[in-house]
Amino acid sequence: MTKNNFTDTDIQFMERALELAAQGRFTTHPNPNVGCVIVDFAADKNGEIVGEGFHLKAGEAHAEVNALAEAGERAKGATAYVTLEPCNHTGRTPPCVDALIKADVARVVVAMEDPFPKVAGAGVKRLKKAGIKVEMGLLEKEAYAVSRGFFTQQKLKRPFVQLKMAASLDGRTALANGKSKWITERDARCDVQVGRAQAGAILTGAGTILADDPALNVRHTEFPNGVEYPGEPGKQQIRQPVRVIIDHRSEVQPTAQVFAEGGPVWLIRTKASGMELPANAEEIIMDTGVTGRVDLTALLQLLAKRDIHTVWVEGGSRLAGAMLTAELVDELIVYTAPKLLGDNGVGMFHLGQITSMDNVPVWEFSEITQVGVDVKMVLQKTAGFGLR
Amino acid sequence: MTKNNFTDTDIQFMERALELAAQGRFTTHPNPNVGCVIVDFAADKNGEIVGEGFHLKAGEAHAEVNALAEAGERAKGATAYVTLEPCNHTGRTPPCVDALIKADVARVVVAMEDPFPKVAGAGVKRLKKAGIKVEMGLLEKEAYAVSRGFFTQQKLKRPFVQLKMAASLDGRTALANGKSKWITERDARCDVQVGRAQAGAILTGAGTILADDPALNVRHTEFPNGVEYPGEPGKQQIRQPVRVIIDHRSEVQPTAQVFAEGGPVWLIRTKASGMELPANAEEIIMDTGVTGRVDLTALLQLLAKRDIHTVWVEGGSRLAGAMLTAELVDELIVYTAPKLLGDNGVGMFHLGQITSMDNVPVWEFSEITQVGVDVKMVLQKTAGFGLR
Repeated sequence: MTKNNFTDTDIQFMERALELAAQGRFTTHPNPNVGCVIVDFAADKNGEIVGEGFHLKAGEAHAEVNALAEAGERAKGATAYVTLEPCNHTGRTPPCVDALIKADVARVVVAMEDPFPKVAGAGVKRLKKAGIKVEMGLLEKEAYAVSRGFFTQQKLKRPFVQLKMAASLDGRTALANGKSKWITERDARCDVQVGRAQAGAILTGAGTILADDPALNVRHTEFPNGVEYPGEPGKQQIRQPVRVIIDHRSEVQPTAQVFAEGGPVWLIRTKASGMELPANAEEIIMDTGVTGRVDLTALLQLLAKRDIHTVWVEGGSRLAGAMLTAELVDELIVYTAPKLLGDNGVGMFHLGQITSMDNVPVWEFSEITQVGVDVKMVLQKTAGFGLR
Repeated sequence: MTKNNFTDTDIQFMERALELAAQGRFTTHPNPNVGCVIVDFAADKNGEIVGEGFHLKAGEAHAEVNALAEAGERAKGATAYVTLEPCNHTGRTPPCVDALIKADVARVVVAMEDPFPKVAGAGVKRLKKAGIKVEMGLLEKEAYAVSRGFFTQQKLKRPFVQLKMAASLDGRTALANGKSKWITERDARCDVQVGRAQAGAILTGAGTILADDPALNVRHTEFPNGVEYPGEPGKQQIRQPVRVIIDHRSEVQPTAQVFAEGGPVWLIRTKASGMELPANAEEIIMDTGVTGRVDLTALLQLLAKRDIHTVWVEGGSRLAGAMLTAELVDELIVYTAPKLLGDNGVGMFHLGQITSMDNVPVWEFSEITQVGVDVKMVLQKTAGFGLR
């Protein structure tokens, strides 16, 4: 059985490289997740893994370097499976291409080309020039998915956007009087921690801060059983996403819980407030033009420029509706509780007037799982995360 | 491995009897679903099935009689696994207890006692008196579930009530202008046919008839692949549930599609309309007391008296809300489409004002499946359908 020119053995090793890549999902931001497996086919045509590695953190060693270090002398003549084209430039670490050439590997199998302009095929070219056999495109879609934020930032110049909502079975996020604690139960709320922990930024509106005063940080102690945080799991070690708050009218006060714990907070405001802000807060003034409101596309572009490649949106129906209407949401994540709040409750998405079923936004379910007593539904705008 | 006093072999044969019982789910109404397996343990301690049967239709042979007919002489000394206590009285068919005694079976394993007053333990007593070993309670819960409508009618003097809704991901059943064709896609709508086909009656409100003019019948041609209708699958053979329409103000006209095809239609009205109605229609006048509205509990009691043991409700948010508020819904079936209708859309459940999260109705997911592009969620009011 072959898939294109690749054997089942090739597929299996690349799947392992993808598993390794995903181990960096909480920590590599703003870098991509990359995994590498070095396989020695000399003694056994089914191959033996002699080195494994993944990229843990920006500024630290790349996946290939970690895998080569483990393989040592055994890398000579071996095959390297790597989920992303090896880099050819000196960034914060030396080029991986040099390391692979120096180790004298015979063959490199690459899942996908690096769209990053400084690489973009140049890495592969150098490897080939050094006499190494290079094969491309094995599990390309999966490799895209494991770093979809990084690639979305490269291609669209905006982050990958996940919109998370929690609602009752009848699609309500709160009672008419605003009460909403709690719609979903603990297991679902713990699962949210895993989503937040993978994001570069958590985006919300001032309304949510004023109504619920959430911390919106990542709490390692609330991670579900079985979800491992790589490296040092101590609370201090956790990479905290930037909290981004759209605050048109400068209503968020320095006493808000969001400033108390976690990493930086960026307040998106329309004019300088003159407020004395906590040390971890930054006021970013955005031009609103004639609308008086922050342009969401411009905001996402700003975040991408600041190296945020994945945004996790947790807000109310207005922010959710505005993001959807502007077609800026890549993935919808809905936690549905087996509760009924009734048709007086607060709706999920403020979408304005839709008058024909032909104009209704259509998504696609990609994941449906029970999380404790609740259900988690993940939806994509298009079929899968494919290459855009 | 034993479960109570039963062996794995016992469990396996009773599971087969339950499978057989379920084969009658479209046709036995108002009778319960019953299955029977006759096993000969003479030559092989693991047993050999020598006869299988299920109840197909009221007035026709019971499961035991069908299984004994297949077993013939081999029933002598065998074990009969039967999902419901064998009957001891002459109804439309002679008592099964007599048939089992006459066939000279050695042992009868019964899943659950028949709550029907004319049986209620008397069948078991007669078997024991005849020297047959009787064991009770194997897979009792499952046996209850396979005939839950019948048992609910016996115990609560009202039918088992399933409330079916189709909604968008954000819990809307129509756009603000009432348009709703279609929220869910064909696979989900075909699945609804299977639900309808198992019910004794389909209940709706006049509003649904006036707005959508649905036929609300069972269309065999729309059954999903793999769902078999027992006996003759020709359209004429299908048991059509009674369509019950709550029509306070006598608004449903004789030209409505609901009268055109399928079985009887019962119009629940508050006074005689004097309308000339189609031959399959019956006007039932219910006293409304001071409310001016039909009392839903009284309506369900009336349906139970008319031998309806399962009601499938397909209506709007008002009927759904009223049924839920009166705590008359046993099972919620929600088809969720991956579409967003927005917070102007029509809500699912009109529940009145709820002011505290402590008073929110809480259900329990029992089934979550993808049906085509849509998701089907089934919820129970309590844990499973257990014995009440």
